[in-house]
Amino acid sequence: MSKGTELVELWRGELRESTHCGHAVICDRSGVLRAWGDPGAVIYPRSSCKMIQALPLIESGAADAAGLGTRQLALACASHSGAALHVQGVGDWLAAQGMAESDLRCGCHMPRDRDESCRLIRADAQPCQLHNNCSGKHAGFLTLNRHLGGGAEYVAPDHPVQQAIKAAFEDVTEEASPGFGIDGCSAPNHACTLAGLGRAMAAFANPGTDLRGQAMRRLTDAMRRHPELVAGEGRACTILMRATGGRAVVKTGAEAVFVAILPDQGLGIALKVTDGATRASEAAITALLLDLGLLSANDPAAQRFLPRPIRNWRGIATGDLRAAPGFPG
Amino acid sequence: MSKGTELVELWRGELRESTHCGHAVICDRSGVLRAWGDPGAVIYPRSSCKMIQALPLIESGAADAAGLGTRQLALACASHSGAALHVQGVGDWLAAQGMAESDLRCGCHMPRDRDESCRLIRADAQPCQLHNNCSGKHAGFLTLNRHLGGGAEYVAPDHPVQQAIKAAFEDVTEEASPGFGIDGCSAPNHACTLAGLGRAMAAFANPGTDLRGQAMRRLTDAMRRHPELVAGEGRACTILMRATGGRAVVKTGAEAVFVAILPDQGLGIALKVTDGATRASEAAITALLLDLGLLSANDPAAQRFLPRPIRNWRGIATGDLRAAPGFPG
Repeated sequence: MSKGTELVELWRGELRESTHCGHAVICDRSGVLRAWGDPGAVIYPRSSCKMIQALPLIESGAADAAGLGTRQLALACASHSGAALHVQGVGDWLAAQGMAESDLRCGCHMPRDRDESCRLIRADAQPCQLHNNCSGKHAGFLTLNRHLGGGAEYVAPDHPVQQAIKAAFEDVTEEASPGFGIDGCSAPNHACTLAGLGRAMAAFANPGTDLRGQAMRRLTDAMRRHPELVAGEGRACTILMRATGGRAVVKTGAEAVFVAILPDQGLGIALKVTDGATRASEAAITALLLDLGLLSANDPAAQRFLPRPIRNWRGIATGDLRAAPGFPG
Repeated sequence: MSKGTELVELWRGELRESTHCGHAVICDRSGVLRAWGDPGAVIYPRSSCKMIQALPLIESGAADAAGLGTRQLALACASHSGAALHVQGVGDWLAAQGMAESDLRCGCHMPRDRDESCRLIRADAQPCQLHNNCSGKHAGFLTLNRHLGGGAEYVAPDHPVQQAIKAAFEDVTEEASPGFGIDGCSAPNHACTLAGLGRAMAAFANPGTDLRGQAMRRLTDAMRRHPELVAGEGRACTILMRATGGRAVVKTGAEAVFVAILPDQGLGIALKVTDGATRASEAAITALLLDLGLLSANDPAAQRFLPRPIRNWRGIATGDLRAAPGFPG
């Protein structure tokens, strides 16, 4: 992957202090409409492709056999904050299927949600796998796995669950994946070009009436219906989906990937900040949503991310994160 | 500031996932010996220049008038973790001078130190200004201010304390600063070229016998004598100073600046990662210390930062942060 073009800058005083480069594409159903940097850049989508990874859950019939509703489908696509509602949502889902936290293979980490992390600290308790931001995706894996009758180690790359996901991923990106990495949650994450990821998002924005189109529509609808489940209070995905009234279904991924599904416009967006900084990917997706008229520059939600004021420990504005010249916003 | 050259890469599986560009210089007393990227890049040194900002504290006679020892001088150069020893060290310093936490103008933030942050959460207590990572620098400002007889608002850019610091900064960087920004702790932070910052570090590594040279030597010695005060347990500055047995006196700054004073070799290092990522500046300074023979590649301290294993929530190695081709390490 090349360095890309300048997307976002941090200014302090009269000087540009830091710069974030990257790649971005806006696609329609026929391919790349607009691009910054290299649409052919090969990336790991990381958690930005969870709605793709959830397709086999629906297409296999597993979701309906298990009676999953929109809340579970939103959690399957989530990188959640591990707040009480997320932990309980995934815990209830597993319990209803007769499965347990110990069936998960995502590992534990302290939740990002401050109330829940403080609760754990005060109780001198450790986080469990339900707190993992990917626990909803893994509950989806487990539900699919039960339907497929696979073994317990469902994150192995050659496991039927992961093979089904790879097939769906290559279908919707319209590419043979050049390889995979192991994600933070231990699941394989398949690489693709940025254009491939953008095409996949455009496919979600233009769902057909076939089985795949129905699955795409259900996942997109679940995400915009439950923005608080997809991330959490104070998080970019939740804030931006609410601010656009669900006209943009957005999803972040680790190492500064961001995607958007824009059903009203039939467009998909994918971007990757080369250095992996989330502050920059949040600013860049906001810039593109502003450019496409899905957010207004005077919307407080937009102003949280672009231009994003940098305030110091006494609340003094010392600079801001802004779009680089040549990038919208 | 231009993008710079590739310094550090993050690999996951068989693919390079993210890349960090930047600028680095190694200087001796006569100027730039080796450079990557642009030595003329204009940067904010942020906290990496605290030893420069502490020069007037000694040169004015304020430090000796107040009876400061090496612990206080190390804290004046610190970006500490807000652990109990830091909070107590700065608190004792202020109390001994008849000053109080409320005299500080650095603001409050939760300490990075986990024991102390958990203690605060369990006690339902808020952090105070002593927890601010810059509280030692500000205690130095207050001590200098008392000596100079300035007003209470010692972080104002036209205040005698800040004017003395600006003069010292321009002296040792051998440049007129093109401007300043307001730092996270509300103090002015003067810009300079990377080469200027490197020259200043080389000056610290080659102290003369004059007043300035004595002040430089005292600050360098205080930092290497108390690595645990300059940052804290688990932090790069503390780990790297210990690992080099004090042969490298290193200091980080926000937005991915790192400097090193190498007294044995008479060299100074300065680097800035363009995107502001600390993981990359830690890797890059480690790469240069390895290249200069101050660390060994099989030293566990070096291996914490370069190549730095990326482990996921189940402890599986999923990738690493490594030096880019063309950069040492």
